Amino acid sequence: MPILGPNQYGKAENRVVKITRNGATHHIRDLNVSVSLSGDMDEVHHRGSNAHVLPTDTTKNTVYAFAKEYGVESPEQFGIHLARHFVTSQEPIHRARVRVEEYAWERIEHAGQGAHSFVRKGQETRLAQVTYDGSSWEVVSGLKDLTVLNSTDSEFRGFVRDEYTTLPEAHDRVLATDVSARWRFNWTGDERQTPAWDASYAQVKDHLLRAFAETYSRSLQQTLYAMGTRIIDHRDEIDEVRFSLPNKHHFLVDLEPFGMENDTPDGAVYFAADRPYGLIEATVLRDGCEAKIPADLTNL
Amino acid sequence: MPILGPNQYGKAENRVVKITRNGATHHIRDLNVSVSLSGDMDEVHHRGSNAHVLPTDTTKNTVYAFAKEYGVESPEQFGIHLARHFVTSQEPIHRARVRVEEYAWERIEHAGQGAHSFVRKGQETRLAQVTYDGSSWEVVSGLKDLTVLNSTDSEFRGFVRDEYTTLPEAHDRVLATDVSARWRFNWTGDERQTPAWDASYAQVKDHLLRAFAETYSRSLQQTLYAMGTRIIDHRDEIDEVRFSLPNKHHFLVDLEPFGMENDTPDGAVYFAADRPYGLIEATVLRDGCEAKIPADLTNL
Amino acid sequence: MPILGPNQYGKAENRVVKITRNGATHHIRDLNVSVSLSGDMDEVHHRGSNAHVLPTDTTKNTVYAFAKEYGVESPEQFGIHLARHFVTSQEPIHRARVRVEEYAWERIEHAGQGAHSFVRKGQETRLAQVTYDGSSWEVVSGLKDLTVLNSTDSEFRGFVRDEYTTLPEAHDRVLATDVSARWRFNWTGDERQTPAWDASYAQVKDHLLRAFAETYSRSLQQTLYAMGTRIIDHRDEIDEVRFSLPNKHHFLVDLEPFGMENDTPDGAVYFAADRPYGLIEATVLRDGCEAKIPADLTNL
Amino acid sequence: MPILGPNQYGKAENRVVKITRNGATHHIRDLNVSVSLSGDMDEVHHRGSNAHVLPTDTTKNTVYAFAKEYGVESPEQFGIHLARHFVTSQEPIHRARVRVEEYAWERIEHAGQGAHSFVRKGQETRLAQVTYDGSSWEVVSGLKDLTVLNSTDSEFRGFVRDEYTTLPEAHDRVLATDVSARWRFNWTGDERQTPAWDASYAQVKDHLLRAFAETYSRSLQQTLYAMGTRIIDHRDEIDEVRFSLPNKHHFLVDLEPFGMENDTPDGAVYFAADRPYGLIEATVLRDGCEAKIPADLTNL
Repeated sequence: MPILGPNQYGKAENRVVKITRNGATHHIRDLNVSVSLSGDMDEVHHRGSNAHVLPTDTTKNTVYAFAKEYGVESPEQFGIHLARHFVTSQEPIHRARVRVEEYAWERIEHAGQGAHSFVRKGQETRLAQVTYDGSSWEVVSGLKDLTVLNSTDSEFRGFVRDEYTTLPEAHDRVLATDVSARWRFNWTGDERQTPAWDASYAQVKDHLLRAFAETYSRSLQQTLYAMGTRIIDHRDEIDEVRFSLPNKHHFLVDLEPFGMENDTPDGAVYFAADRPYGLIEATVLRDGCEAKIPADLTNL
Repeated sequence: MPILGPNQYGKAENRVVKITRNGATHHIRDLNVSVSLSGDMDEVHHRGSNAHVLPTDTTKNTVYAFAKEYGVESPEQFGIHLARHFVTSQEPIHRARVRVEEYAWERIEHAGQGAHSFVRKGQETRLAQVTYDGSSWEVVSGLKDLTVLNSTDSEFRGFVRDEYTTLPEAHDRVLATDVSARWRFNWTGDERQTPAWDASYAQVKDHLLRAFAETYSRSLQQTLYAMGTRIIDHRDEIDEVRFSLPNKHHFLVDLEPFGMENDTPDGAVYFAADRPYGLIEATVLRDGCEAKIPADLTNL
Repeated sequence: MPILGPNQYGKAENRVVKITRNGATHHIRDLNVSVSLSGDMDEVHHRGSNAHVLPTDTTKNTVYAFAKEYGVESPEQFGIHLARHFVTSQEPIHRARVRVEEYAWERIEHAGQGAHSFVRKGQETRLAQVTYDGSSWEVVSGLKDLTVLNSTDSEFRGFVRDEYTTLPEAHDRVLATDVSARWRFNWTGDERQTPAWDASYAQVKDHLLRAFAETYSRSLQQTLYAMGTRIIDHRDEIDEVRFSLPNKHHFLVDLEPFGMENDTPDGAVYFAADRPYGLIEATVLRDGCEAKIPADLTNL
Repeated sequence: MPILGPNQYGKAENRVVKITRNGATHHIRDLNVSVSLSGDMDEVHHRGSNAHVLPTDTTKNTVYAFAKEYGVESPEQFGIHLARHFVTSQEPIHRARVRVEEYAWERIEHAGQGAHSFVRKGQETRLAQVTYDGSSWEVVSGLKDLTVLNSTDSEFRGFVRDEYTTLPEAHDRVLATDVSARWRFNWTGDERQTPAWDASYAQVKDHLLRAFAETYSRSLQQTLYAMGTRIIDHRDEIDEVRFSLPNKHHFLVDLEPFGMENDTPDGAVYFAADRPYGLIEATVLRDGCEAKIPADLTNL
């Protein structure tokens, strides 16, 4: 008889918006929360017995109730409340994983009363994943869809050539990517103080951007590694960073048939291609630490 | 025999990135350009004769060549160069319509040399549509995907009730929408000075946001109208504005089964719904002007 | 003071699934329904008075109630029930437009009891738009995302060449497109028998496909016109067809650098490009009829 | 100093269409191919030296050249050709992973000459992933976006209730999901005959669908397990199957306020919800085998 392997279940993509009122000044946290539970679940797979199954509808209710009860201090802290609850309150649940996406808003400047008007920032999506097995915590934070571009200080030369290689060397190219990154905290236990999640996030994003901008790039791999080392070197709370960086190709358009030189010193016209794209993926680790973030970064 | 009705053709979604170098300071304009040509095109439809057909590949080449030759001063001005070219250089082409999407970038602050590092802003997409028939111009600009939210100062009461009405009145609700707007300029002819396109765009966006924030809303229609009148009243160069505003419902979650009151005075928890959504669409016109923007706003 | 121009409102994208049981044999209709109402709506825009506003929540309720009361005979017939209801039951509503998307399902063959298992077909999305102003009907049906490809019998030659033209002539190319089509019925009044909507749809789709396959194509415009005339010639109930056909370019890959000939007689390897794409749009009319379908086909 | 962890690179989403001509009868294979290479890549990350880097542009060229040279017998076989090539021809490359999406086409019936007209089937996307490390093979095939629905023979009862549980028991509900599945073959070495990839795929899809249809479901977990065991029991070439099944909720609409009973025996009206959704994920294994498919199924 076939065997049941690793499994989990829960309610995905609960869209929670929490408004906090401080007089006429309101604050907003806008989340997409997904819960995955695992544990003693053989019976429901084998025979459809739900005696160990807390309904996914209940996990959804809990998300909304906890947003009221505990508020949303940060995506990570909110995930910790939820993960702890499921593992400690349900005997058959041995592990909970909570994933959170957060969408940032900024205030609209205006002449009216109060401060309760917002426009969605629209830049990257912030990510957090909290996993708890009843004794130990793993928190991985991240971001996706942060699109960056250097219009110079990038080259690609000295590469291997085989019988299928036609690419000329590039001495001055556009380097652009949609940063998808995940970083793992070394906080694992309740006996230690939790990191300042929001401040940590802001710092990591800042380091990412600066490392991207300040690195003269001989390959996207080098830029990736510079971004990762910058984070590991500056943020003690983080032991591991993984990136998935599509190389968003910007091809210099050949304008010679029209009697024009499309040279970079003078500024240039590029075709921004969709597919295919180079895809560079790597993990950067604090020395002595183990890689735990999976090779494939998922959307949530 | 069936008759050929209105028709047009061209190359859609040409992704053009123009980098301008001013020493170590670079500037970027990032466009998606679509060209549609119409004119004396019966033969190609009836018999497949391409004797009047400038290839769509050529319209693509022209977009790139013009980005080099004329630069990209603004999406509108770039569209004007292109539309004029096709109508004046090709006898069978009687009308050209150029649509442009523009994606905004902002500079990355860093400690390195030069200013050639950018991060995509990621907020709204700017839109421009330029139409030329050889004698008269129509320019419609716009934006899409500008998501805004008021966490109070919105109600919905006093509405019609019929046998299918179950909605309770709302005295304090969240009002949120993704603004999609198009505005038509009254500039139509070469003898008049063109508007300052970039400055006009920035002003219109600002008016939109402020009108949204400053309006106490009894219905999304009222907010829409306030946004439109604000633009017409403040921007002499614009005669018509059309909006398509999805009412992005934020439902107050019922937490009573869990012994909690989810009251707005104290801050509240909302479920942000995807579908269905209310959809409010209307045109606001300068007195004496005619509505020309089509009822259905398209993506590009 | 600015003037209110054309406007409409309603609930969009109501996802309705209707299951009908005929003993152990079930039938499914899977719809996405959007309602837009217009009429005497100045007050809600000017002053936020909702005295004429039937809530969009009510239009949603009506959609679900009508699916139960009248069933879903066809998207068009369902739209007729709804549009008639809003215009005749609400004095301020002068016009109703109902748009319907339908997703097709097919039965799963199996050894079990009954016939209530389905797999989504996944091909094109069927569309219907019904508009009623209290006296006259307009029904436009359509489809989108029907992707077709001819691997030969397509060429592109004899076109105009200007200074920006570099395209070589093509004597044997792949022709592929995602068909988006809308067709207008000449049924306008209750005194006439309605068309057999489902049978008509199946016939039109069949004619489209056959005309695409049977036309030796000298340009995509010619193929478009052949598809339109085929429908007008064979379907008396239809007076107008409009197409929006992206030319999904399949470029023959240059394999010469690798010592290979990528010739079509022997079969060939193509790069299927995303953007840019040619975009061919045209209306085909029954002689003596007027073009009423808007130039820009919207998604819904 | 930070340490480089697991890493890979290559060209993603190469869109390859291969047409084979057998006289007037043409055949089409339509693929999206992504290559990821890993090996001795420290230098490019640490110092930007590309001396070990075969350009991603070359991996793209190789994909197209191999489509001509070897043809596309199946996605799996095509992946095997590519993976072997990179590992055996490039000393620094120690492992190659090739992912393939395939889109199915069916023939258009028509009265014309030849058989070279196709319409995209549009149902599920077929997936294959081939990994080679120079000595051993791993092939994981799969599919995504196969949407299925049972309109009865599903219930959900006897579940755990806690303080956040409000869900009533369901005795007759709609069960619908978008099947995303991956299955691992036990073929690992060149000395053994490869499976008949296309026939195997067709059989697995058929078993999936039948198991879904023939299972009276007390929970989606039970249905998942039935689908997995059916494959393991019938397909000797497969040792492991993993599913990710969103529970696409179809809520019975409350029509009582309108004086209607929305009862299932007579057929019923459902609201098809988007988010949130239950998400059920599990692996089913042949007894004695190890779970190797990652917990998170990625899109490609």
